[in-house]
Amino acid sequence: MDSAEFRRHGYALVDWIAEYLAGSERYPVLPRVSPGDVRAALPATAPEHGEPFEAIVADFERIIVPALTHWNHPGFFAYFAISASAPGVLAEFLAAALNQQAMLWRTSPAATELEEVSLNWLRALLGLPDAFEGVIYDTASISSLHALAAAREAAVPGVREYGLAGRTGVGKVRVYCSEHAHSSIDKAVMLLGLGHRALRRIAADERFRMRTALLRDAVAEDRAAGMIPLAVVATLGTTSTTSVDPIAATADLCRREGVWLHVDAAYAGVAAMLPAYRHHFDGWEAADSIVVNPHKWLFTPFDLSAFYCRRMDVVRQAFALVPEYLETAEGARGVRNLMDTGIQLGRRFRSLKLWMVLRHFGADGLRAVLEEHIRLAQLFAGWIDADPDFERLAPTPFSVVCFRARPQGTALTPAELDTFNERLLDAVNASGDVFLSHTRIDGAFALRLAVGHLRTTDAHVARAWELLRSHTVRLAR
Amino acid sequence: MDSAEFRRHGYALVDWIAEYLAGSERYPVLPRVSPGDVRAALPATAPEHGEPFEAIVADFERIIVPALTHWNHPGFFAYFAISASAPGVLAEFLAAALNQQAMLWRTSPAATELEEVSLNWLRALLGLPDAFEGVIYDTASISSLHALAAAREAAVPGVREYGLAGRTGVGKVRVYCSEHAHSSIDKAVMLLGLGHRALRRIAADERFRMRTALLRDAVAEDRAAGMIPLAVVATLGTTSTTSVDPIAATADLCRREGVWLHVDAAYAGVAAMLPAYRHHFDGWEAADSIVVNPHKWLFTPFDLSAFYCRRMDVVRQAFALVPEYLETAEGARGVRNLMDTGIQLGRRFRSLKLWMVLRHFGADGLRAVLEEHIRLAQLFAGWIDADPDFERLAPTPFSVVCFRARPQGTALTPAELDTFNERLLDAVNASGDVFLSHTRIDGAFALRLAVGHLRTTDAHVARAWELLRSHTVRLAR
Repeated sequence: MDSAEFRRHGYALVDWIAEYLAGSERYPVLPRVSPGDVRAALPATAPEHGEPFEAIVADFERIIVPALTHWNHPGFFAYFAISASAPGVLAEFLAAALNQQAMLWRTSPAATELEEVSLNWLRALLGLPDAFEGVIYDTASISSLHALAAAREAAVPGVREYGLAGRTGVGKVRVYCSEHAHSSIDKAVMLLGLGHRALRRIAADERFRMRTALLRDAVAEDRAAGMIPLAVVATLGTTSTTSVDPIAATADLCRREGVWLHVDAAYAGVAAMLPAYRHHFDGWEAADSIVVNPHKWLFTPFDLSAFYCRRMDVVRQAFALVPEYLETAEGARGVRNLMDTGIQLGRRFRSLKLWMVLRHFGADGLRAVLEEHIRLAQLFAGWIDADPDFERLAPTPFSVVCFRARPQGTALTPAELDTFNERLLDAVNASGDVFLSHTRIDGAFALRLAVGHLRTTDAHVARAWELLRSHTVRLAR
Repeated sequence: MDSAEFRRHGYALVDWIAEYLAGSERYPVLPRVSPGDVRAALPATAPEHGEPFEAIVADFERIIVPALTHWNHPGFFAYFAISASAPGVLAEFLAAALNQQAMLWRTSPAATELEEVSLNWLRALLGLPDAFEGVIYDTASISSLHALAAAREAAVPGVREYGLAGRTGVGKVRVYCSEHAHSSIDKAVMLLGLGHRALRRIAADERFRMRTALLRDAVAEDRAAGMIPLAVVATLGTTSTTSVDPIAATADLCRREGVWLHVDAAYAGVAAMLPAYRHHFDGWEAADSIVVNPHKWLFTPFDLSAFYCRRMDVVRQAFALVPEYLETAEGARGVRNLMDTGIQLGRRFRSLKLWMVLRHFGADGLRAVLEEHIRLAQLFAGWIDADPDFERLAPTPFSVVCFRARPQGTALTPAELDTFNERLLDAVNASGDVFLSHTRIDGAFALRLAVGHLRTTDAHVARAWELLRSHTVRLAR
């Protein structure tokens, strides 16, 4: 593809994307396809001869677009709603063309240093002290994996060299988190060879916060049984209800016990920018490591997970390994090489989009959007609370509302109520105007409305509410 | 940023990238910056107020571009040379805007099924049987990590639940690879909790291929000592010399021993598309898992690593874990959810670029480029062989040449010869026209010239040769 062709196709895609970003509402949020539709529409093998780019784009529009779930739609309220903002999308375009591989400073001084600068900017916005060194990974799964790997390195002498079964004397280890912690913690514990049973889930209180007293008892009990408490994972914004574990008390306990504290703030971390919400974060500056995902609620296209660590030397101790062909003069002089802080040798130029997003919005712009999203969620929560046919199932500290319908005048068993709400969710999502997801809270099927898209307005939240109410009336008949 | 602004900035970036892809030669391949330059040129904190996109792009050009190492430059001959092809770059632009998160079929039917289709296409091009199921990860580090995690799952009963130190009876385990295997294997073994000593590196022959007889002896010796041979990693295209381990013999041994065989073909795997090079791959179809990186030598922007596995059920057994909030009706009916085959919950829409690249080039187009790159490397190797002042240090099976200067009429000690070649490499790279990297071969400092960029021509290889010869003459004086 020569320059002229690239310009032609590039301009066409700019037009397509401009329309998409402004007009994704013309698509149903959830696509109307069945499993196998995309596969069946495509040939079984690659073409023998190259095809015109127009033909590829035509198939993209004909086959791929109708099978997209539109994460970049203002009616996307599922999971954690996210946005690929325009500056972030343009930054990714540039990053793809530059094709940096920032394993070493030498292989991309720009990406290496911009990662440091942009993470320092974000750290200051979050109000975290300079003692936290940052590194960018792809996902929170990988950030938390590195946190627990570092905790293992710190707690089990010689584990890098000898492993967990390599010599006698390595007792059973334990990792603690709330019953509401994310499944990535389970997966990390399994991958690290600790065994799933090493993860002890602590019961939460009525507001879905880890009970510190039970955590303390569990650590004491395990110590008495000769086990090694490796790490505690506290969550700032759990996946189901966005509840906030008591960070300060957990940090005190971890300091006293000499246990690694990892804070999973993948979703809610950015709310630390808002003075009115800072109290949720009291004590997180005492953590050993923290993960915050700009690809969740900071308008940065997927993927970009920010990992902050007070003890990055331990991460390096766990992972640094430099083969001869990657030795450089700068490395010998102590320059930072990003490959030393991770399991992945290859690293994309992810910081470019974070830097452009932070500059495009500015600190006040980011705060304004976050506040607006929280306002919209609280507005919706207020409608739920005021309607006798609905009930909220959890507090709403940030931008996610958990609720269910409980239509008056019906006498539904708990199982029937679950079924009713499952049907309600399906009906609302079938509209194509919105997409909500679900969870279970204290055993009950719960609907979740998560606000996080840049273009979500009162009208979108009102549309969700209108759909919920009208389908509840219909289904209750 | 509204639609009109997005178009304006988007068109400008299309122009910039069009010029960059066609004219990256106006930049020095290796930037002329010192550690700290980028950091010093940027403010210490994010702006309080949002800035115009023009100002951000201006700083990008002023501060970031001069600090790029130009991986997308036809004189980039270091490590493994790669290309972000134009269709791949355009695909990434689209993928960023769509912002798919393909953890579940429901969260992106398009990305889920296009991943299957594009990997099936690639599998057929590679001549691998349908028994290999594919999944896309970010890097070969993560692909090989999953391979060894699956091997651990298969060899150590209950490891997911009980871990490696969780109960008695788990003996020491062993993973085998050649002395020339990639450092990602070391890192995976360490992360998995096996301990670095569990990795037994087998000596290679004079052509840098793992000695199968020594591997057989090592496995027998370890079995006799009560250890569990977990996996063998054979490399098709090692990092230093691109040597090829004897795959068929290794596969025979692994089958007899019941040991997982993982084939690291991250770089050279794509050469399986070329009939003249198929003999290198004899027996790889018997592997349990294979990694091939389209982001290396298949013109796909970084990152995209293709992982093929005959026993994906074991990967699922090691990793599948579905919390309530990610349960879907389709999942209950058995549709494939990509989150079940990996440690990362979040997954970008990486298959879009692979699909577009495969269609843009077509099978014959890809074969033609690969053949051309091998031709250029063989041409260069011929020049080295014909010049009495140079010597080749390894066979050149694909597109990478390992060599050094050994100027006639000088009587250099081995250490002096190393220093001479280090200086030669620095001088050649300082030209800005080319970037070569180094390794050590049998203890000697070796230069590496890797061909892999779409726009690399005879002229670029000739320029590297001219620089090498002229600086050798100068330094030998």
